[in-house]
Parts: sequence; structure tokens; C-alpha cells
Amino acid sequence: MDAATKVAMPAVSFDTSPDRYRHWKLAFDGPVATLSMDVQEDAGLSPDYKLKLNSYDLGVDVELADAIQRLRFEHPEVHAVVITSLKERIFCAGANIFMLRGSTHAWKVNFCKFTNETRLAIEDASENSGIKFLAALNGICAGGGYELALACDEIILVDDGNSAVSLPETPLLGVLPGTGGLTRVVDKRKVRRDLADVFGTVAEGVKGKRAVEWRLVDAVYPTSQFKQRVAARAQELAGRSDRPSSGPGIRLTPLRPRITDTAVTYSSVSLEIDRDKRVATLTVSGPEGHQPSTADEIQAAGDQFWPLRAFRELDDALLRLRIVEPLIGTVVVKTRGDQESMLAVDELLLANKDQWLVREIIHFMKRTLKRMDLTSRSFFAFIEPGSCFAGSLFELALAADRSYMLDDPEADNTIALSAMNGGPLKMSNGLTRLQTRFLAEPERVDQALAREGSFTPEEAFEAGLVSFAPDELDWDDEIRLAVESRAALSPDALTGMEANLRFAGPETMETKIFGRLTAWQNWIFIRPNAVGEKGALTAYGSQSRPEFDFNRT
Amino acid sequence: MDAATKVAMPAVSFDTSPDRYRHWKLAFDGPVATLSMDVQEDAGLSPDYKLKLNSYDLGVDVELADAIQRLRFEHPEVHAVVITSLKERIFCAGANIFMLRGSTHAWKVNFCKFTNETRLAIEDASENSGIKFLAALNGICAGGGYELALACDEIILVDDGNSAVSLPETPLLGVLPGTGGLTRVVDKRKVRRDLADVFGTVAEGVKGKRAVEWRLVDAVYPTSQFKQRVAARAQELAGRSDRPSSGPGIRLTPLRPRITDTAVTYSSVSLEIDRDKRVATLTVSGPEGHQPSTADEIQAAGDQFWPLRAFRELDDALLRLRIVEPLIGTVVVKTRGDQESMLAVDELLLANKDQWLVREIIHFMKRTLKRMDLTSRSFFAFIEPGSCFAGSLFELALAADRSYMLDDPEADNTIALSAMNGGPLKMSNGLTRLQTRFLAEPERVDQALAREGSFTPEEAFEAGLVSFAPDELDWDDEIRLAVESRAALSPDALTGMEANLRFAGPETMETKIFGRLTAWQNWIFIRPNAVGEKGALTAYGSQSRPEFDFNRT
Repeated sequence: MDAATKVAMPAVSFDTSPDRYRHWKLAFDGPVATLSMDVQEDAGLSPDYKLKLNSYDLGVDVELADAIQRLRFEHPEVHAVVITSLKERIFCAGANIFMLRGSTHAWKVNFCKFTNETRLAIEDASENSGIKFLAALNGICAGGGYELALACDEIILVDDGNSAVSLPETPLLGVLPGTGGLTRVVDKRKVRRDLADVFGTVAEGVKGKRAVEWRLVDAVYPTSQFKQRVAARAQELAGRSDRPSSGPGIRLTPLRPRITDTAVTYSSVSLEIDRDKRVATLTVSGPEGHQPSTADEIQAAGDQFWPLRAFRELDDALLRLRIVEPLIGTVVVKTRGDQESMLAVDELLLANKDQWLVREIIHFMKRTLKRMDLTSRSFFAFIEPGSCFAGSLFELALAADRSYMLDDPEADNTIALSAMNGGPLKMSNGLTRLQTRFLAEPERVDQALAREGSFTPEEAFEAGLVSFAPDELDWDDEIRLAVESRAALSPDALTGMEANLRFAGPETMETKIFGRLTAWQNWIFIRPNAVGEKGALTAYGSQSRPEFDFNRT
Repeated sequence: MDAATKVAMPAVSFDTSPDRYRHWKLAFDGPVATLSMDVQEDAGLSPDYKLKLNSYDLGVDVELADAIQRLRFEHPEVHAVVITSLKERIFCAGANIFMLRGSTHAWKVNFCKFTNETRLAIEDASENSGIKFLAALNGICAGGGYELALACDEIILVDDGNSAVSLPETPLLGVLPGTGGLTRVVDKRKVRRDLADVFGTVAEGVKGKRAVEWRLVDAVYPTSQFKQRVAARAQELAGRSDRPSSGPGIRLTPLRPRITDTAVTYSSVSLEIDRDKRVATLTVSGPEGHQPSTADEIQAAGDQFWPLRAFRELDDALLRLRIVEPLIGTVVVKTRGDQESMLAVDELLLANKDQWLVREIIHFMKRTLKRMDLTSRSFFAFIEPGSCFAGSLFELALAADRSYMLDDPEADNTIALSAMNGGPLKMSNGLTRLQTRFLAEPERVDQALAREGSFTPEEAFEAGLVSFAPDELDWDDEIRLAVESRAALSPDALTGMEANLRFAGPETMETKIFGRLTAWQNWIFIRPNAVGEKGALTAYGSQSRPEFDFNRT
């Protein structure tokens, strides 16, 4: 099923900007921005399906992710966002079913992962950046459309006798609402599980007063009052923000990597691809040369300030890896640069962490590292002389499945921590990577953070900060063997194993969505009852009705 | 893949007793019992595979579950249990691979679910019954063997230069350690995730001092000291128990249901099967006639005391449903009996909850209800005149996906709560079913529990305790339609939906195992890289090496 993309998918780019959006309109009115969905039927990523009724594919969601990101960096004066639709009586019909049906399993899974990350980015902006989101459902809101609404702080539904919210995936398609829908219904909106059970099996959904009573939406208003009520509520939500009352923001300019057949090269990040060995090398270079020293200078540097530039590049590299390079199973993570400069940048970030732009930069670094945690590839960090695994960049070693540090008495090789390892870059489970690592011995977290200065290989190993510290005689063999033997294992078993080992400790709505819900969805996405010849997803929209194997599993 | 069992599996019975065990020996020495694995190669459930090297199939695990259960009820004087093996240099090789390879997907999934429940029952006995478990690994301990050890409080491994603990599923079979292994390694034993990553990919496992350093076992001893150290530690663990210092316990006698083609009838429970409609009706009758009124009388009544008898029958019915009736997708749950008698029994249980036997009975009721929560069938409770949805039996309505209560002014129909709904019968997520139900309005839990007397249909609906309360004109149509439309949906989508909606709120190691780990394992169990013609599970033990589709998902 994975061997070939069933629908021809063009190369996807994650680089876009409002002037190039095909599917969304972004409008501003003081502290309130309105993000309106107006999907162009003929502008899907593939010509094989039409994006009717504001249904979406990955291309639509890339624009949404871009818009959320730009609102944070380019528009500090925006304090609330209304998400609505420009189509008559339709908010959004959800993910395009014909796109899903025509996609490989891997594409479906990566599509859902990206859309999940985008919805979590909305919640992250609400929780951490003082931007509240209001879903203004001006019409039918089905499946992924409702899941988008669920990611907003509040949901207002028009009460026109017709417009309903629904999760018709189970009754119509034999799959799950896979973009957090089930989890957010019972865990975020705390809908009673028996009512959620009914809601999840009724294709036509729930509307009007009952939608409010069941906690599926926060309010319904008749068409005559809808726009005015939405506008009033958006103003109220905007009033609670701690963002600046005016701009300017900074411009996020295109990344423009140099792309060859075997490498993607950005200014501070490179991704080298070895398809024969199914291994990539991801290298991040630390800050170089003169760095800003005040919040004003950071703002003046804009998107060229190293942490923002490097992590935007890293984020793009991870997305490319997922979508463009499915055969690369193992990623060797390296860094290079000057550790002192890296630690100085961390210090600058923390000294200015309450300034709106620095706050955005830190949260963006956090989200990028989460993207790495959630990327289903094996990451091995190789720490060698000249590397820059310090502070924020040491998170790359902590995010890796393993780390190897060369212990060569002839060559200086150190790692270092900073306060950035102690809190701001939390994982999806709500803990720092150090806390997750040392669940058994929490005192080690403080011990490691309290240390002044860097760690030699022996010290790093003793402190539990690296997995192995081979000497120069063993190094080449040991890392070669580690990579080769990893690349030989079943990629599916590795995906499952990594998903279970990476997130020890507490669970959050986020880890539930990526753990439980996603894993079930992946299972269902390859079951014959969904995607077989007579499965419900296959049968949808055709004359034939699905035929199920009714054995319960 | 589900259409037919690939290996002929005989009808499984969950009824056994020590004198009939084929695979385990149970020995007693004062407060310490020793449960020794000695699997008979030729006594598997199917003649198609041999249970070599203490590998196991469902039949072996049914005996283990029975032994744990009997230690709790029949042997109150047992305060610690040593789990070991009678085979030379082999503790346990894990689940039998040829059994797994020959099984349908549904069988694999149900097998793993039952073995998971058994291991959780070990942990439940440790946490709640004062029985500590010591895994005495006298030899090689691989896969499911190590997962059994992980369920124990402590693990001692012999240090003989050869004996190792291992999770070879990923490197050898292309599947996950699916019986809680990955979760318990990082969450229970808090092994560092990078070391767990290495451990999970090294087929030969880890032994000796390194196994202790990595927290995989608690201690290693040379062969010469092993037995004595195990015995000494077991005595120490036994010393901490709050169980009685001597017996007698009570006998768990066989259930002996009457079984026809369309019904299984126990004394207080019946399961009627309608295979054409794919619906079963599960009816539980409340206590009748004279009931004990003191702890001594409860002990005298033994396994005929209603709560123990009825919940043992319910447990057996649920297991039969899972294994014997895979085509039954929807279960209508009914009760009948006298609510006052039911509430009096609840009161008696709670008044004596610290007595060892009553404590066991309450925890068994809890585990049975958890088994229901974890059964992948849709449960609809129908509350009609003459029913007995009161106190402990009202948990059946709360465990159901939905409940319908007939509101007929001509006929008395009520439900009632007791303190048993307020704490002792917690779900896997650590909350009561009422707390899970009212996550959005926690005050409703106390309001409902505070009420004196029963609830009419209208009151029950207003209090949020039932999903719907149709009147007598609508009743027949509404419940018929609910059942018919449920039975028409994709069974896979329902399994996934229910698994996501039933466990809102906090996560525990237990919900992680059944949510995240199980869902990933189910996914991997149907991937071609595991079970396809050239998959690793298929290739194991043959001359051919697996060939993978290396696309990462």
C-alpha cells in the first residue's frame, strides 16, 4: 500500500505567505484578525480531486499554519482571531475524502500529524501568546472542520435550522476523527462520554440549543445576530491579551534553501541524504559573529536573529524529511559552532523572555523541538570535537533516541547546559527533556543544571547526559554499527517503539492525541473495513455501500 | 485476515484450578508462595505449535490468572509470591511466536488484552491486597517473560554469565513488546529513554551488573547465592503485609454455566446471543433472599455470597463474549431484582471493607468492571421497570456507552446510587465512573451521591445519570433504532472511538498500556512488515530473512 503514492502528489512546499494564499483570506480590524476559509476547489495539491465545500488537503493546512505563525510574529497588535468561512452556509466540510482515499497510508498519517500540529499551535498561541481564537461557524461544520473549531478557545454556531457541528467519520467513512476530535470532545470540552458516543455516530451532527447543552459549542445565535455577536465576543476576547497594543512585528522572509538531489542546505542547518544507507545527517550550526544584546536589537535583527532563523530552518528540514524523504529511517544529528556564543544567546533570550518577540521566539523553538519528538525517524546525536551541543542546542541531543560522545584525550569535546534546558522548552508531556530523562532520579536534573561550566565526555556520561562515550579507538566502529543495525530494523516496529519510549511520565491532551488517538487512527486507516475494496472510505461517494467484516477486534 | 482462525483454536475455557494446571506449579511455605512456570510443550491450546522454552499461549496465561486469583481468595496467609521457573537456565521465552504467527489479528489482540489484564491483576494484588511479587529469574528471560517480571514488585536475575533480560520483539519479530513492556520500562521502572531504546533493539538483551545499572532488574546474584537470596528477600517482602497471618480462605468453586447455542446461563448472569442481529443481551440479577450480615457470615457464604458469585459470572461472560463471540458488536445490558437488597449488600460490603475477604471481593468487582470498560463491544444499558440499576449494579449503566431509561407514568422505574459509586470501583484512569462522567461539572458527583432515595427517569435524566429517558410511546422505536444503527457501523471505527471516549481525564500506566501501547501494537500487528509474506513475524524461525518496505510512517 505504501509502495507508491496512489494519487500523484506534487512536491509540497511549506513556504508560503498571505499574498500567495489560495484558500484563506486574512483581514485586520484593530486587535481582531479574521482568518476566513475560502477554499479554491481546483487548487488542491493534486488535480485528482476537487476541494468542494471548503474541504481541505495538506496545501490548505500549510496556509493555515503559515497564517497562525505570521499572526504571532508579524502582528503583535492582534489579540484575537476569528476563524470563519466565506462560503454561504458552509464553514468547512473537513479533510477532503477523495484526497484521503487516494493517498498512501504514510501520506494519510503525515497529513494528520501536520494538521494536528497546526491545531496545537493554535492552542499554544492561546495559552502562551495572548491570542484568543474564536471559531465563528457560519454554516455546516463537519469532521476536520469541527476539529479545527475545537482547537479554538470558543465556538459560536449560527442557529439557522440547518447548520450543525458533526464528526461523521465513524458513521460515514469507517474511520476516526483523527485530528484530535475525539480527545478534545471529552478532554478539552469535557462532553459527557455517553453524549460524545451519540455525537460520534450521528452523521448529521447536532445543532442549535442541543449543541450548547451538550457542550459541543459555546453559543448559538440566529443569522440576524450572528455577525454582530461574533464581533462583540472577539473584541471581549481581545481585551484580555497581554500583547503590545501596536506593532510593528517582524517579517518572516522566505528561507530559500539550496536543494540538490542529496542535500538541503540552509544558512545554519543542513540535511544530507544518503538514500542507499537510508540515513540522513542533520547539522545545525550555532550562532556566529556579532549578536544582538538587547530586545530592541533582537527586533531589529528580525528573522535573521540566529535562534529564529536556525529553528525555522530546522523546522522546515524536519517537515521535508517527513514528507519528501520517507525512506530515510535514521537521522544522525550533529552541531557545530562556538558554545560560548550559544550560551550567550540563551542568556539573552532568558533576560528578555517577557518581551513579546522573544517570547514568540522561545515558544517557536519549543514547538520545533516538539516536531522533532513527534517525527517518526530514529535520531542519534553524535557529539564530536567542534560541536555545539550547548544550552538550547543540547536539546537536540536530549530529543534524540540516543547520544554518542567521543572521548578522545587528544581532542577537546564538551557539552554544556543553560537555563534554557530547565523549563522553557517543554515537551508535549509537560516536562522538560531533562525531567523526562531523569524520571527515576529527579535530583539529577538540578545537579546537572547547577553545574558551572561544561562537561567532558566522562563527566557527561557520569551525569547521565549522554548514552555512550566511546574512546577514539572504538568510536568509528561503534557509531557505524549503531547506524547500520538501526537501519536494518522494521520501520513500523521502530515507529511504535519510539512513540512509546519518548514520552514517559505524565500525559497531556497533546500526548493523548499523538499517542492514543493517532495510534488508533493509524490502525483503522489500514483496516479493510476502511480502505479495502468494500471498505467505507473506498465506498464513499460511489454507488456501492460498504460491506464490513463484522468481527470485533 | 480475520475471516478464519488460521490455526485451529479449540474452545477456550477460563475455568481451571491448581489440580488441573498443566503449566504452573503452586507451592506454599508459610507466608511465601512459589509459582513456578513449567510449560508442557505439547499442551498448548492448539497442536499446531509446541510451547518450547517456557513460551506461552492463552492457555498458559489462563492458569496464571487463575493462580493469582486463588492466592487472593483461597490463601489469605500468603503475603509474598515468588514467580520463577522449573526449567534449567530458562525463565520464560515469552509468548509463543508460532502461536502468534498462526493466529488471526483478532486473536492476537484478545490474547494480548487478557495477558495485560493478568499482569495488571498482579500489580493490583500488590497495591491493594498486601501481596508482594518477586520475579526470580533463574535463566533467560525474553519478551513476554520479561514483561511478566516487570509486573512484579521486584526482579532478581541470576548472574551466571548467560542469563539476560531482553525485549527482542522489535529486532527479531518486527513487532512491539505488547504486554506493557515498553510502558513499564520507562514509566514503572523509569529506565532512561536512551537506554530503553538500546535495550529495545538488542535481541540478546542485557545481563549482570549492567542490567542493574540500567534499572532493568533490582539485583543480580551468582548461581551459588541465587536461591538463598530470593528466599530471604521473599521473606522480607512478606513481612510488610497487612493480610491475616493464617487462613482459612474461601474456595472458588467452578461456575458451571448452562451453555446452549444461543445462551450462556449462570446463576445470576445470563448472556443471550442473537447472531443474526449481532447483538447480545447481558442480564445481571441482583441479590435475592437472605444475605449475610457480618464478615463471618460473608466468609461462611464463601463464593456463593452474591457480589462474588455474580461478578465472577459477569467476568466469565465478558471473557466468553470476547473470545467466543467475535461477531457480537453490541451488548444490551439489563439488570433485574430488588434495589433495596442491592443497596443493603453495598452497605454490608462497605461496613466490612477492611476485612481481608471483603476487600478482595470489592477489588474483584472493580477489576471485573474494568474488564467491561476494556471490552471492545458497544454496551447500551436499558433501564426498565423491574430492573436493579442500584449502587454497584448502577456501575454497569455508567460503564455502558449509553443508557436509556423508560419514562412510563404507568410503571415504577428508578435507579439509585450508593457509596460504592463514590470510590471503591475506580476505572483504569484512577477516577470513579461518576467522576469521569462529570469531568465538566464535578459538583454533580457529590450532588448525585448525596441524594437520599432513588431517582425517577426524569430526575435521573436531569441529574445527568442516564443518556436518554424516552416515554412509553417512543421507547420501543428508540431502543430498536439505537441498536440497529449501531450494529451497522464499522466495527473497527467503533473500537477506536470507544477506546478514545471511555477514558477521559487523567492517564495512568494502565490507560497508557491499553491506549497508546495497545493501539500501536494493533497497528503493527497488521502491517506487512510484520505479518506479510516477507514480514519479520512470518519469517521468524524459517530459512528466509525478512524483507521490509523501509518507508517510515
